[in-house]
Amino acid sequence: MISLAHGAGGELMEKLIEEHISQRFPQHRGEVTLSDLDDSSVIDGIFFTTDTYTVAPIFFGKKDIGTLAISGTVNDLLATGAEPLALSLGLVIEEGFPITDLDRVMTSVSATAEKGEVQIITGDTKVVERGGVKNMIINTSGIGRRSPLLDGNFDVVKKFRGFKSDYLLDSNVKPGDQIILSGPIADHGIAIISYREGYGFESDVESDCAPLNGIVNSALRVGGIVDMKDPTRGGIANCLNEISRRSKVSLIINEDRVPLNNPTKAACDMLGLDPLEIGNEGKMILCVVKEKAEEVLSAIRKTENGKKASIIGMAEKGNKVIMETKTGGKRIIDKPYGDPIPRIC
Amino acid sequence: MISLAHGAGGELMEKLIEEHISQRFPQHRGEVTLSDLDDSSVIDGIFFTTDTYTVAPIFFGKKDIGTLAISGTVNDLLATGAEPLALSLGLVIEEGFPITDLDRVMTSVSATAEKGEVQIITGDTKVVERGGVKNMIINTSGIGRRSPLLDGNFDVVKKFRGFKSDYLLDSNVKPGDQIILSGPIADHGIAIISYREGYGFESDVESDCAPLNGIVNSALRVGGIVDMKDPTRGGIANCLNEISRRSKVSLIINEDRVPLNNPTKAACDMLGLDPLEIGNEGKMILCVVKEKAEEVLSAIRKTENGKKASIIGMAEKGNKVIMETKTGGKRIIDKPYGDPIPRIC
Repeated sequence: MISLAHGAGGELMEKLIEEHISQRFPQHRGEVTLSDLDDSSVIDGIFFTTDTYTVAPIFFGKKDIGTLAISGTVNDLLATGAEPLALSLGLVIEEGFPITDLDRVMTSVSATAEKGEVQIITGDTKVVERGGVKNMIINTSGIGRRSPLLDGNFDVVKKFRGFKSDYLLDSNVKPGDQIILSGPIADHGIAIISYREGYGFESDVESDCAPLNGIVNSALRVGGIVDMKDPTRGGIANCLNEISRRSKVSLIINEDRVPLNNPTKAACDMLGLDPLEIGNEGKMILCVVKEKAEEVLSAIRKTENGKKASIIGMAEKGNKVIMETKTGGKRIIDKPYGDPIPRIC
Repeated sequence: MISLAHGAGGELMEKLIEEHISQRFPQHRGEVTLSDLDDSSVIDGIFFTTDTYTVAPIFFGKKDIGTLAISGTVNDLLATGAEPLALSLGLVIEEGFPITDLDRVMTSVSATAEKGEVQIITGDTKVVERGGVKNMIINTSGIGRRSPLLDGNFDVVKKFRGFKSDYLLDSNVKPGDQIILSGPIADHGIAIISYREGYGFESDVESDCAPLNGIVNSALRVGGIVDMKDPTRGGIANCLNEISRRSKVSLIINEDRVPLNNPTKAACDMLGLDPLEIGNEGKMILCVVKEKAEEVLSAIRKTENGKKASIIGMAEKGNKVIMETKTGGKRIIDKPYGDPIPRIC
């Protein structure tokens, strides 16, 4: 039987997808395929990605499921090296949903698409009976073209590494590469539960969900980026483990350098949650050749969503994600098994 | 408030989409845009379409939501003139869903994708708590390239019509064009309700859902097709009205010539349903220059899913869909307002 943990972005989900879904679809053609399980796939030069958003509640502070759906899919395109071209918008709406709420979500969709420099070009709307879904579910799929900045970026990679890649892939990281995180973690997940009934805690934490075109493009302009990945479900714990496994490297992370806002830290402490495992929707992890890491960091810090970016660690030989703690110890960061907060995306 | 009728593919849904959704997304670039509301959109030569499938029950006879999801999206690509290239697969699964059922659906997805000559290249899996969805919802988005058969097809159109088009658009139809329907109507909707609890009728009707590559390609090889459209939600009543409105023509349909299987007719009579308004998932309406209509018909009839194809009528000057009845009368076929059977797709 499928359990909530199967949808959590952790180890159990990976197993479900590999054993019951992706292995059934051998891909005969394509530059980046389903079995790569990267942020987007690529076929005939077209980047393609999909995400269904089941976040509950659908409104959270100044943002909502519309902000989230556009941000998440734009970021998946960006993370593979695409220039986003167009999105689809598939709505499933519960009977009785207020049209004013639909208007509010569509206003967010429209504003976020403008920020993400992408057009909505096709859509589908389904209405189901009460209880068929809760309020609304949105699927956004996205297509893109290879970013014109990639060639210059990989020229820099080649200069320092002696080889090029065609895409920003989770299998591209080599020992010595530096790991940049674009800002504080766990705000999205904590914001979502703070708006959920029954949790009974008030919080000023705001979801980070935003399209990251500014961060990605400024980093690519400097050059030397080998991989990007947005740490959504399963948090940076999951994201770093996926990079480690696909690139066959260890990632050594310095706890002191992982940005974490105080109210979010307080909420995590109170709820007994590990911020490393909490999902983000407006953050990017960038793996950079070490010679360019400081320059990329300073470019990212000049962007709207990257002011608190930090070099959080580096890749070494090995096959683990290791946290050097504030107290001088070391601990292994595993891929989360389940997820402490379901339905945050 | 959103009502079930808003999702029915009829007049109310069109109004909702135009007033609250599509008008918010002005498309600045693209060959076929969101505001065209055709089966797929086209940007920079890439065809793109999306559909979320909320069918209940998810298993219906030998077919299921997996067969449906792949067929529907492949057919939307085909209907605009694309050669399907790749699909995404977005699953939302209810906690407690049996893994054996997931395997059964994925087997259908895989088999139908093979028939539809398309690869699944990207996906997303969400699990929601019990009651968050009913069993499973699938979104499939699709991308395609302009079919290499379109140029030859439109050379034939040009020969008889004096002009070409780049795509198979609902606005391309001119007085004199013949309307071909690829087979009997209403089987899908009737099959779905026959498997629904509470209806208490036994039926041998099987859903028609299937990818229509064979029909479409054999028709395009003959040439002279100006438009195709798959009559899903709202049935052929809705589909013909959309063509009539976008092409600014009347469509005169001969009731005698509309194929309808006897068990489906019997079920419609019993349930008081108009088969013209019931959704299909393996049928295509093709609008053809009259000089090539018979030849296209005979090519379609040689294909697996087109054996009962029929020329059901023709376009004339005007702005209505008119049915010439078996008794010699005429009646106007309106766009359905709501939908007698929700959640059939």
